[in-house]
Amino acid sequence: MKAVIMEAFGGVEVLKLGETEKPVPGEGQVLVKVFATSINRPDLVQREGKYPPPPGDSLILGLEVAGTIESLGAGVRGWKVGERVMTLVGGGGYAEFAVAYASHLMRIPDGMSFEEAACVCESYITAFLNVFMIGEFKDGQSAILHGGGGGVNTAAIQLCRALTPACKLIVTASPAKMERVREVGADFLINFHDTPDFTEVVKEFTNKKGVDLILDHVGAKYLAPNMNSLGYKGRLVIIGVISGIKAELNMALMMVKRQQIIGSVLRSRPVSEKGEIVVEFVRRALPKFADRTIVPIIEKVFTIDQVTDAHRMMEEDKHFGKIVLKIR
Amino acid sequence: MKAVIMEAFGGVEVLKLGETEKPVPGEGQVLVKVFATSINRPDLVQREGKYPPPPGDSLILGLEVAGTIESLGAGVRGWKVGERVMTLVGGGGYAEFAVAYASHLMRIPDGMSFEEAACVCESYITAFLNVFMIGEFKDGQSAILHGGGGGVNTAAIQLCRALTPACKLIVTASPAKMERVREVGADFLINFHDTPDFTEVVKEFTNKKGVDLILDHVGAKYLAPNMNSLGYKGRLVIIGVISGIKAELNMALMMVKRQQIIGSVLRSRPVSEKGEIVVEFVRRALPKFADRTIVPIIEKVFTIDQVTDAHRMMEEDKHFGKIVLKIR
Repeated sequence: MKAVIMEAFGGVEVLKLGETEKPVPGEGQVLVKVFATSINRPDLVQREGKYPPPPGDSLILGLEVAGTIESLGAGVRGWKVGERVMTLVGGGGYAEFAVAYASHLMRIPDGMSFEEAACVCESYITAFLNVFMIGEFKDGQSAILHGGGGGVNTAAIQLCRALTPACKLIVTASPAKMERVREVGADFLINFHDTPDFTEVVKEFTNKKGVDLILDHVGAKYLAPNMNSLGYKGRLVIIGVISGIKAELNMALMMVKRQQIIGSVLRSRPVSEKGEIVVEFVRRALPKFADRTIVPIIEKVFTIDQVTDAHRMMEEDKHFGKIVLKIR
Repeated sequence: MKAVIMEAFGGVEVLKLGETEKPVPGEGQVLVKVFATSINRPDLVQREGKYPPPPGDSLILGLEVAGTIESLGAGVRGWKVGERVMTLVGGGGYAEFAVAYASHLMRIPDGMSFEEAACVCESYITAFLNVFMIGEFKDGQSAILHGGGGGVNTAAIQLCRALTPACKLIVTASPAKMERVREVGADFLINFHDTPDFTEVVKEFTNKKGVDLILDHVGAKYLAPNMNSLGYKGRLVIIGVISGIKAELNMALMMVKRQQIIGSVLRSRPVSEKGEIVVEFVRRALPKFADRTIVPIIEKVFTIDQVTDAHRMMEEDKHFGKIVLKIR
């Protein structure tokens, strides 16, 4: 089968279209005929050799796919060859065929294209898991979502608007992306170039109460303003540390305000836990895709032979929403 | 009524036995005829003027009482005058009568003295809340409990041994208290004078896995060794910051290991939440007191006119278990 092959780690130039063995689904797995995948930021880090896939997963890039079921591994029940599915994969998305766990499959709603479906699993499941399951976000609450326009951030805004319509969303973004972030559903925008310490504006916007939830991938630089912006019983969910890993924490404030800091990753979770997350996502979030309340935002669709251009676009960080790779 | 009165904040000498008005129970409250109360560390801090009681609560010291119901306020159902009860109070325990919320009352099991009952509410409910409800400690898991011999720590050891008998408990303590801590139920003792960084010994004891839960009142000095000793999905529950409030946090480790830091206080929680905690405590923990699996450990019983001696004993920190104040 055709796949994106890397002979070394490095810049976009290491990505080559090549041929490799078609994978074989094991027990509880299916083989997916991939029609589309999408680019996620961890793919770039993995390409540079700094994010090895979990043991046992494919070395080929790509964390999510949309396609049809090509064949079933041993012990798989409830799925048929030919069904349109979208799914998380441990790796291997940038290829004509990929192996996925049957417990991670979701049926693609009618009217949703493979390109759209290729955007649902990584970003929306990450956002859903951390905002609703771990962050226990409820309607009427307030949140700060950092990094307006990124895949997880945009997914989080759309999910919050659809599932908790009375919530208040504060979003930090670059000036170039602020207007589009507002259109997606942010209530209050913070220009993160001008306002590295957003504590005061958040206090003002929340009538001094602070927010209930912060979804953060920034890490060190934002720890202090995040904790100062968090209200009583507030939760800071950390899903990335791009600005650095260490910063000073004020524990007295945390105690009096009964706050929580929760570290979270999706990729390295056990198969069974991912399955439980998918069940909850299908129950609560998927109907909002089926009725088109949520439509994945796609910046551009590239073909598989344009994979270097696709990675370059994400590196330049001028895109808004997802970058899709069409496999066939 | 007789009560311990403070005319100023300061050392033990500000505590005087005096006369004050008997309090009147409001709606949903009862008046308790107090037979015994106990000394808790926050009482000392409040005496020094550094821990004001929540608005609306008595200015008299004392966070828990045991006695009989003297009268019922409006709207109280399910309780009778004369019943033997123990309860958290917002303040006012060092007095002949104290007001308590009916939803916070617990019946004293037969065979338990007022002196023992005066030790149950603050320490055991704090330990139960933070270990089992917030910390979600399960049988077979491992924990570090800091400060062996203190009221909350001793309560936590006893509760863990009674409710999760297959757990592994690592306890830090001063050399003078280590032997008694072992008798109460610790599996592994760490001398906290010799071992300010306990990471390596914890790793060794847990076969490199780290622990599932840490109950910490130390704060800054222990943040790094706590986080390094915490295993996959581990929870650090912070209930005090006696060594300092600020320290450096490694967020990358938290993320990869999916760890949580949770700040927690009991006293300032809303009345309704304390009621929910009491319901859970009565359901899960109280039967272990009724059948004498757990017997509160009392260092010494003082009479109310010896209150300065009682505070002095806690300040000297040579006691093991609770210091009780007998009111009548």
